[in-house]
Amino acid sequence: MRNFDYMTPTRLIFGEGVIAKLPEVMKPFGKKILMTYGGGSIKRIGLYDKVKELLSDFEIYELADIQPNPKYDPSVLDGVRMCKENDIDVILSVGGGSVLDCSKAIATGAKYDGDPWDLISYKAFATDSVPIVDIITLAATGSEYDCGGVISRTETNDKIGYMDPHNFPVVSFLDPVYTFTVPKNQTAAGCADAMNHIMEQYFCEDSTILNDGFMEAGLKSLMINTVKCIENPEDYTARAEMMLTCTYGCNGIFSLGNSPTGWPCHGIEHALSAYYDITHGVGLAIITPRWMKHILNEKTLPRFVKYGVNVFGIDASLPEMEIAEKAIDATYKFFESIDIPMHLKEVGIDESRIVEMANHIAVNEHLDRAYAPLSEADLVEILTASL
Amino acid sequence: MRNFDYMTPTRLIFGEGVIAKLPEVMKPFGKKILMTYGGGSIKRIGLYDKVKELLSDFEIYELADIQPNPKYDPSVLDGVRMCKENDIDVILSVGGGSVLDCSKAIATGAKYDGDPWDLISYKAFATDSVPIVDIITLAATGSEYDCGGVISRTETNDKIGYMDPHNFPVVSFLDPVYTFTVPKNQTAAGCADAMNHIMEQYFCEDSTILNDGFMEAGLKSLMINTVKCIENPEDYTARAEMMLTCTYGCNGIFSLGNSPTGWPCHGIEHALSAYYDITHGVGLAIITPRWMKHILNEKTLPRFVKYGVNVFGIDASLPEMEIAEKAIDATYKFFESIDIPMHLKEVGIDESRIVEMANHIAVNEHLDRAYAPLSEADLVEILTASL
Repeated sequence: MRNFDYMTPTRLIFGEGVIAKLPEVMKPFGKKILMTYGGGSIKRIGLYDKVKELLSDFEIYELADIQPNPKYDPSVLDGVRMCKENDIDVILSVGGGSVLDCSKAIATGAKYDGDPWDLISYKAFATDSVPIVDIITLAATGSEYDCGGVISRTETNDKIGYMDPHNFPVVSFLDPVYTFTVPKNQTAAGCADAMNHIMEQYFCEDSTILNDGFMEAGLKSLMINTVKCIENPEDYTARAEMMLTCTYGCNGIFSLGNSPTGWPCHGIEHALSAYYDITHGVGLAIITPRWMKHILNEKTLPRFVKYGVNVFGIDASLPEMEIAEKAIDATYKFFESIDIPMHLKEVGIDESRIVEMANHIAVNEHLDRAYAPLSEADLVEILTASL
Repeated sequence: MRNFDYMTPTRLIFGEGVIAKLPEVMKPFGKKILMTYGGGSIKRIGLYDKVKELLSDFEIYELADIQPNPKYDPSVLDGVRMCKENDIDVILSVGGGSVLDCSKAIATGAKYDGDPWDLISYKAFATDSVPIVDIITLAATGSEYDCGGVISRTETNDKIGYMDPHNFPVVSFLDPVYTFTVPKNQTAAGCADAMNHIMEQYFCEDSTILNDGFMEAGLKSLMINTVKCIENPEDYTARAEMMLTCTYGCNGIFSLGNSPTGWPCHGIEHALSAYYDITHGVGLAIITPRWMKHILNEKTLPRFVKYGVNVFGIDASLPEMEIAEKAIDATYKFFESIDIPMHLKEVGIDESRIVEMANHIAVNEHLDRAYAPLSEADLVEILTASL
């Protein structure tokens, strides 16, 4: 086991109707709230009105229209400006992981004198932030329980994941009922995102009995519950189990003490959605089995055998390479079974920029240091196999 | 899934040599430290000297001789008095769960004007506390990652578990090397304590795929690693895995959203060690399989089947009742295999006070509301079967 330094101070308030606690949670921070959200979904499900009603005693400023793959310009910059101009006490993020990621960049940016991109690109480090409370409406990214975010900058094709301990939400409200209206394709994409968060940690040099069992249970939970959510979008228990499982995805608790892995699929996918603005979870689902096939070798084989036997119940008495191949195939087929488009061409990506993207990834993501190191040539092969 | 409100803000600094960070961790709190510890073990392993050397710039007050099953009088009362008299800035708990539990009661007691027992017995609630940092030297209680403690009051045979969110340690240092010298019997007792923490949560009305897998992995981790630690006390990986698994025991993360269970074995054991001052983990190991046998019925059967198949690998095609009985037997045999005395008589407890203890438990522990409700008569039967 490796040494680690771990903390997740966020309070999780979970379950149907917990939003009733919102006023008492917000009160200690002050009167001035920046409420951040995306498109119209929170209005359609009545959450926008509910929040405004519950917080009628507060002074609410609104930053709307935060996009998936949230953008530095205008969303982060607008939010930072609004915080500074209005002396905002607390940010209330209402929506999915993109809204929350954007809110995190705003929170530290608002307490920084220079260009907020300095913080996202680690040119400078935050010393303070505006506190964040969130109401999460999509089971996927786990942003509600970590201190990271991913921000895109269109003009440079940058999509950067960054972490800052100031960015842990103080409180996350998780009501599974708000995910009842998430359409099938987004439910599936959220599942793929969360499954990949676990796989990025599972495929590593060394792990523990505890972490492996925790992660294998997480993967099974996501697959079984996603199928139920797609069959019956109002299955409370399935939505709830999915929501909680997603929550653990990115704060490191699945892999405390494990060897680092480099999160290669995320590194590759960030280029795809930076260049083409595709849905993150779909990009991950397409890349994952191709990446698995590419890195399967004698060294990585034992992890794939464990994955196949414990997650998919593949017969442990089969030859090891056969178990591994069946496991990769089962991964592909699961994503296909929940109707995720499994080829880049289906989401509008052709071969024209593969070499350019592979170079961008190689320069920015340091995947030569991944569990199974990937060179620029490896990246071209994985991307080409994903077409 | 049930609604829940969960937070564990403690920072875990884990691994060999992490104590080097102690001065920078302590600095923000102030100069005046109350260092709490137990018997001589931290002196024997050189930890006492190391701490004093690292903190030579601080003003250190010492509360020594904190006993297992830590006592309200004198330890808690002395600690509270020392904090108040010396205006202590931070408590540094160096030792196992008993030292830390005692330190927690001191931390809130020191900021309370009345009798600290009011807080332990929930007659009053803390509004403030002295911050706690700990260096844990025994893998067992999980006190380093929760806000609870158990305090004994000899004159009334009370052993009370209580929780207060002020009592989360701010930082817990976990260096597995400090557990190399833990003798076999204490290693085994720590394992039984931590296993029981999981079982208390596992046997419940409803759980999730994620929680079940997490808990089953926790139980397997504890059994496999304890055997390794006993065979080779300096097996770093086994000590480390055991230490981390124990850490999750009592903060609720194993069972978020599960139905409540009442923690019946702890309720029973608290009476045993309050009346006879036996080792907590040993008491739990003795009680657990007798409790299991007692509550096995048609309603609880499915959980025992799951436990037997997933934790002990019992053949799932056997009749369900046979799987359950084999699982209970395997639990008993595991504790026996690590040389835990498995009869109350072996630890000096005879039948003379069973009726009195059963009454004390029935009055104080509310086990009529447990997952499998226990009446006073049930308690007499379980205790008698444990003789």
